[in-house]
Amino acid sequence: METLSTNKAHDGVQGVYRHASLATGTEMTFSVYVPPHPAGAKLPVLWYLSGLTCTHANVTDKGEYRRACAERGVIFIAPDTSPRGEGVPNDDAYDFGQGAGFYVDATEAPWASHFRMRSYIEQELPELIAAEFPADMTRQGITGHSMGGHGALTIALRNPDRFRSVSAFAPIVAPSVVPWGEKALAGYLGADRTAWHPYDACALILDGARVGELLVDVGDADQFLHDQLRPELLRAACDAAGIPLTLRVQPGYDHSYYFISTFLTDHVAWHAERLTA
Amino acid sequence: METLSTNKAHDGVQGVYRHASLATGTEMTFSVYVPPHPAGAKLPVLWYLSGLTCTHANVTDKGEYRRACAERGVIFIAPDTSPRGEGVPNDDAYDFGQGAGFYVDATEAPWASHFRMRSYIEQELPELIAAEFPADMTRQGITGHSMGGHGALTIALRNPDRFRSVSAFAPIVAPSVVPWGEKALAGYLGADRTAWHPYDACALILDGARVGELLVDVGDADQFLHDQLRPELLRAACDAAGIPLTLRVQPGYDHSYYFISTFLTDHVAWHAERLTA
Repeated sequence: METLSTNKAHDGVQGVYRHASLATGTEMTFSVYVPPHPAGAKLPVLWYLSGLTCTHANVTDKGEYRRACAERGVIFIAPDTSPRGEGVPNDDAYDFGQGAGFYVDATEAPWASHFRMRSYIEQELPELIAAEFPADMTRQGITGHSMGGHGALTIALRNPDRFRSVSAFAPIVAPSVVPWGEKALAGYLGADRTAWHPYDACALILDGARVGELLVDVGDADQFLHDQLRPELLRAACDAAGIPLTLRVQPGYDHSYYFISTFLTDHVAWHAERLTA
Repeated sequence: METLSTNKAHDGVQGVYRHASLATGTEMTFSVYVPPHPAGAKLPVLWYLSGLTCTHANVTDKGEYRRACAERGVIFIAPDTSPRGEGVPNDDAYDFGQGAGFYVDATEAPWASHFRMRSYIEQELPELIAAEFPADMTRQGITGHSMGGHGALTIALRNPDRFRSVSAFAPIVAPSVVPWGEKALAGYLGADRTAWHPYDACALILDGARVGELLVDVGDADQFLHDQLRPELLRAACDAAGIPLTLRVQPGYDHSYYFISTFLTDHVAWHAERLTA
């Protein structure tokens, strides 16, 4: 692991790191904020998965999470959203290819060789975090925005014993039935929709996957609310499954980091309560 | 004035605006955050002047000021650092020309025709703010970073009746005697150093200018601390003049927005106490 930068911030250290990923076959960059802590302490971890077009940098620059993480003693991890670089397949669209990994292990050519973000986020990067940072991997929470909210929900539903807390900002909750998701899942996984189920939060819940509770914020001025996000489908799935869902529709907020940064402090506190209980 | 974007954030509105400036003869872009407030209320104003290479966008994205401004009811204004665009003189260096206006009214060719940031910040933009936003212009504070800290100090020292509060992050306090300042002031104002005095905070103080008090934060890991910033010169000038200066040397912090965003909440609160007293 190579350190690209470290800066003192809110009495802790915001770092950006790069490593050669076996999962993706590429160099991968991610950021980690480590709050101030006593020497030798192991801290709970909050994963933040980003949305379409983003890298680690968007939330690192605009997320306004460091003060809350410093106050609560939470490590904050922001991975990239796909493999990148020369030799990695791409697509001209903003919603497919590089910057749009959808947190899947692709099975279709030409994507299958590098687009293995499920394995990267579920297995490889946690091992690196555990080895390199003062992280207590028995206390992990996960959140994310839009495509990253989809990632957070599906990863938590597939790994309920690993994550004590799950939340999301404006998540794609049912990619199998919305344009962004149908395009991406067909492209990465092929036409057989049963192969999409592990990557669809609502389908996972209907298939029996469970988490203890969920917190979701979405803005009612979000331009993607009605055709891509469709939180009412998560509401229906959670109600049918008996999963307590706190779904907050925030008046006047849109899909941007102005929305995320307004409520990320709340989410850090919500996760911290569950990770430090 | 043209509205480029507005986004709800921390229960207020972060806007970005553009207008045709008579002072600079160019289009100028700036950002304004208006916190939540009762209809008809007029709110105190905090100006934030940015540093070398920056536009309004750097602090708007990375400053983490909106929560504090929302809690305190303060309008936050972030202007650009120079005129820009085709037909505007420029220089290949990062520390001169576009992005490096140094808040002066240039007198030297080819800069004098457009580089009139003193007039823009002192006269033209305040009139626009007063006309277009719910701003109480009898309650103004000013701060800034690096070159913008220089701007904040010198503008406040020249206009002590206008600003109730002045602070700075890692300011250039004596541009006449440091490399950034000597280059810029000679370039914009010519070789006669007496013409530089109105644009040098320490020189202004030695010449008799006064403000009620000053708050300055600087990081001891700031790479520019010893050759460009030299806060000890401000310490000496304030001590000689009897100006109360709170100079905080923050251990481990550098010159970046990680430093600014850590302490900008403190500065907003400090200004708010003085603007709402």
